[in-house]
This record gives sequence, structure tokens and C-alpha cells, in this order.
Amino acid sequence: MAVLCKPAIAVPEYIITRDDTLELARQLHANHSQLNLVLRLIEHTGVVRRHLIQPIDKVLEHPGFDARSAIYEEESKARVPAVVRRALDHAELEPREIDLIIYVSCTGFMMPSLTAWLINHMGFRSDTRQIPIAQLGCAAGGAAINRAHDFCQAYPDANVLLVACEFCSLCYQPDDDGVGSLLSNGLFGDAVAAAVMRGKGGTGVHLQRNASYLIPHTEDWISYAVRSTGFHFQLDKRVPGTMEPLAPALRALAEEHKWDAGNLDFYIIHAGGPRILDDLCRFLEVPPEAFRFSRATLTEYGNIASAVVLDALARMFDEASAQDGQRGLLAGFGPGITAEMSLGTWTSSPN
Amino acid sequence: MAVLCKPAIAVPEYIITRDDTLELARQLHANHSQLNLVLRLIEHTGVVRRHLIQPIDKVLEHPGFDARSAIYEEESKARVPAVVRRALDHAELEPREIDLIIYVSCTGFMMPSLTAWLINHMGFRSDTRQIPIAQLGCAAGGAAINRAHDFCQAYPDANVLLVACEFCSLCYQPDDDGVGSLLSNGLFGDAVAAAVMRGKGGTGVHLQRNASYLIPHTEDWISYAVRSTGFHFQLDKRVPGTMEPLAPALRALAEEHKWDAGNLDFYIIHAGGPRILDDLCRFLEVPPEAFRFSRATLTEYGNIASAVVLDALARMFDEASAQDGQRGLLAGFGPGITAEMSLGTWTSSPN
Repeated sequence: MAVLCKPAIAVPEYIITRDDTLELARQLHANHSQLNLVLRLIEHTGVVRRHLIQPIDKVLEHPGFDARSAIYEEESKARVPAVVRRALDHAELEPREIDLIIYVSCTGFMMPSLTAWLINHMGFRSDTRQIPIAQLGCAAGGAAINRAHDFCQAYPDANVLLVACEFCSLCYQPDDDGVGSLLSNGLFGDAVAAAVMRGKGGTGVHLQRNASYLIPHTEDWISYAVRSTGFHFQLDKRVPGTMEPLAPALRALAEEHKWDAGNLDFYIIHAGGPRILDDLCRFLEVPPEAFRFSRATLTEYGNIASAVVLDALARMFDEASAQDGQRGLLAGFGPGITAEMSLGTWTSSPN
Repeated sequence: MAVLCKPAIAVPEYIITRDDTLELARQLHANHSQLNLVLRLIEHTGVVRRHLIQPIDKVLEHPGFDARSAIYEEESKARVPAVVRRALDHAELEPREIDLIIYVSCTGFMMPSLTAWLINHMGFRSDTRQIPIAQLGCAAGGAAINRAHDFCQAYPDANVLLVACEFCSLCYQPDDDGVGSLLSNGLFGDAVAAAVMRGKGGTGVHLQRNASYLIPHTEDWISYAVRSTGFHFQLDKRVPGTMEPLAPALRALAEEHKWDAGNLDFYIIHAGGPRILDDLCRFLEVPPEAFRFSRATLTEYGNIASAVVLDALARMFDEASAQDGQRGLLAGFGPGITAEMSLGTWTSSPN
């Protein structure tokens, strides 16, 4: 019985507000032919503030991909361990009790991934398995949950540590001025999240079933151009409309489990942007407050990529309203276009 | 009962021989203070020829990371599907019968990974799960086998497609002239490999147990520097000596299964270089011919990174000497330093 325990989250100390963002867009793109559209889109995101690993003037000056790679390594080593420690504490486990680390991060690239350093520096066993995933983008939070669930299905006594480390500000590209890029510059934020899935015991979401779904022929709708200047995020304007084809996949997953996706007790949904949440509410016919955890993440942190689902889930723990046996849906969305979806029930009872 | 079926391999059409390699090293590094050492090391690799996706003059001129990323995408789309189709044929499965695609590749980076394109262009189901891994380097071939095994443990009816796409020549860095870099320039080759792990039925290696092992505090022994010029492979001179600490991990895995790692019927071992194979033979106390499949891969193709273990396994199928119930060890080694190890028995009987 795989239980996803309370996630730990950390957002960095540098804050940029919506007003700062709008002012910057006006200054930096004063002559942009679609500036008004961009400003409207940014206002409409619902993002009130975002947290960054560096002051905004440092973010805006691109120091080159070499330097950004070094910053990614330095900042991930500085920020991830404390979050991991809290996630372990929430699950009442020690590093030596972890059998698999799934590390997801699409905003920096290291080989070996941070998993090797974490094993060496935090007391994980030398035989801890590692799954580093860099190429599922925002969907990787859902993928981490689902692959952890699969692993606990294979090895029912196993415990899995999930880490999502996203420094989206390290992918800011000053020369990209398409509408999708400028919107993204006002949408994404930085955060580190971690959680433990316990094979036995634990309070949280007891995973019951998971599935992936790829919307056919959309592989270039969300993508990176990989260049000498680093990763360039490319967002197609059709992306906000993807809940129409994805909602049936979510409904189908629930039906396979004899559940009704429109009538569950909790929803932990990737907050890609406001229309993702509004549309999915509508297509699943659930009230807006059903997505309150995801909306709070979007408002307070922006789209923090693969960390969103873990942050939204942490907010549900904080609300402390879930009752044993209540049923819920978790879903991450990202490049592919891929949805990583799961169903679970709340459990507070130790096994 | 998870069975790893016969892998399919393709090596590209451009060939560079050992003599070509030595001559190039002499020309390009005529004034290098350690040229003689480099030449000796390259001669000692045992690599007779390697295959490249481009003519050597194209490989040697670095066209920039943007262009290399475009070449990676183009060449992987051109070369992977035919190999996947052959792997499916070997397993007597259709794309629609695959439940998970594990795509490993450390020599190019795409987001989304090639998995999305493969699903869209080869008739895989929209609910095929995806695990793209870029950060386990040469160990990723073993990791792909092990994660496929775990998945079949979780879902015994599932089938998994493994793909290893390695264009090592796209990581050639003309300005890197440390001894480790020059040796690597004479060691690595390009190849695409794929195989299917069937949950039920199939002829091949019936996976029994798998494990990972990280040699403590070696995370910077094999690494990439991620720069504006792409991935820079960094090889510590201590790496060839890593079989001494890894052999006990292989022995321990076998002992857990009541097997003797020194007395198995077949060995499918990552051919990182000649000393890796020589040392492991010695530490496991097995005769050199036990590693003949890996040696043949190294001789004919060079170190083809994560594709080595699948190529070595394909050679065992070609030899057609394995008997039902014979026991073997598979192992990939790579950055971390990570070993991804598994045990299996040969089975030719349909379930």
C-alpha cells in the first residue's frame, strides 16, 4: 500500500511581484508590437508573486550557459538537502530507509544528476536506486509520483524519495520575445519540493492506480530548443486549450477504477496556467474551489513546473480537512503533451 | 516472468579504424606533451573500428551546440525507428502491445524526449508510459533493463520497450585536450540499440533480481561539464580502477540470490574499456572468454555507452549457445560511479 506522505517545499528568498513583472515587461519590450496582449496575458495568469534564486537583475543578465550550469549545480546543492530532510521527517523515515530516489528537474542539467551527490552527502545507502528525469518538464511531478507508485507495486516494502528541483529563472532568455516566451517570463517561478512515498505505513494519499496519456501529434507544442545559450522554452499558443482532449483521459482513468472524475473529494492538478485550471474545472464539472490548492500555488509561487503537484498536495495537508477514505485525483501536465495521472484515497491510519 | 528478448542494433555507415584514430591523434596533437601516452592508451583500448553518424571531417569541426542539437534530433529520428521495429519483431510484438518506453541517451538532449515522437510516429498507444533518462550515461543501459524489470514486477502482463540511442561523436570537443578527453576521442562510438522486455512469454534472459550500487564519493570521476559548446565529457584517471570496489557489489547481488558471481554461465558486461573487462574477469575469477560478447562489442564498435549491454546481449543470441536455465549476470557502469546490475536465466520456452 503505497502512501504519498506530506511534501516539503522551499521557495527562494528573492521575490518578484505581478506589478514588478508588468513594469519590467513594459520597460524591456516597450516597442513590442504585441505588448498590450502580453501585459493582458500576464495579468490574467493570476500569479501575484514568484520566488527566484537570484535577484531579478541577475536573472535578467544572461551570464552564458556555462555560468548558468554552475549556478544550477551550486544552488541545487545548497537548497535541496534541507527540503529532502523535511520530507523524510514528514514520512518518519531516515535516509537509509529509502530504496529509490526519483529526481526530476527540467531547468538545469548535470551528469551525474544530483542523485549521486545526495546519496553521498545525505547518508542514503549505496544501493539506493536512481531515476533522474529531465525531459518530462512540468509533467515530471506527476511522473515521479507514478513511477514511485509502480516501484512500490513491484516492491511493497520499498520507500521512494521524490525530489523536484526547478529553477525556471535559469531558463530566462533575454532575446526570445515571442508572445509565448514573454508570457512564460511572467508565469514561471523557482522552487524545490520533495516527498516520500512509503510502501508501508504513513499518512497521506494511498495511491491506487496511475496512467499516462499523450495527446497525439502535439510533441512540438511545449518544447526546448537546446542551444549554446541553454534551454529555450517554446510554448505553442494551442497549449492552454489542451484540457479539452485531456479531460476524457482523466475521466477514463477514473471510470476504470469505478470512480467518477467529476465527483471526487480532492484534486491535485498541475497549475500550468489559469486556463488549464478553469477549463479542467469546466470539463470535469467540478466547482472552482475543488482546485483551490493548485490555484494557491499559482497565485503565490507561479508555475513552478514539476514542483506544482507536490506544493498543491502540501497545501492539502496543511488544510487538514481530508478524511480517511476520501478519494482524489492527481495530475501533472507537460511536454509531449503528456499527462501523468493518478488516483488515490486519503489515509491517516498506520498499517 | 520478465524476459529480455533479442536486442536489435544499428551502427552508422561512417567508419573510423584504429589506424585512422592514431593518425588523427598524431596530426591534431603533434605538440601535446603526453602524445605518446595518449597513443599507447588508444592502442591499448582494443578498439579496432568505430562507426559514426557523420564523416570524420564533419565530426571534427564543431558546428556549435545549436547545430549539434539539430543533428541529434534529425539523426535519432532517422535511425531509431528501424531498430525499434526489429526489436519488436524479435519479441513478436506490435507497438500497441508496449506499455512503457524507456529511452536512454546521454549524447543529445531533447525536450520532450524522443519517446513522444516515437509514440506519435510508430503506432504506440497514447497511454504508453515514458521514462526518458539522460543522466546515467553508460550505466543507463543497465538501468533501462532494471527499470523495465521493476515495471514487469509491478505489472506482470506488461511489455517494455528499451531504446539506447548514443551518438557519442556529437560530444567531441576539439578544445579538450586532457589525456582523459583524448583517450575518450579514441574510445567511444555511435550506435542505436533497442530491445523488448516481455512480461509473459518470449525467448531470452528471464530477469530474476536487480540492484544498483554507487561507489561512495566518486560522483566527479565521470561527469559532464554542461557548456555553451555542449556536453564536455570529463574522465578521471581513477575510473579504470573501479572494478575493485564494484566486484564485491556484483558478488553480493549474486550471493543474495544464492548464486556465485564467479561461476555463472554468461556475462553481459558494460565494455567501458579494456581494463574494466580485464579487472572484472580477475576479481570475479572468471576466464577471459566469459566476457567475449563485451570484448567483441568493444573491438568492433568501441564503447557505445548505454548501448553496449544490449549489443553484447545481441551477440549472445547470435552465438545461440545458451541453454534453458543457464544463469547469467548483466551489468552497466557509468557516472555516479553507478553500477546497474541484474541476474537472469536463459529461457527459450514460451510460457
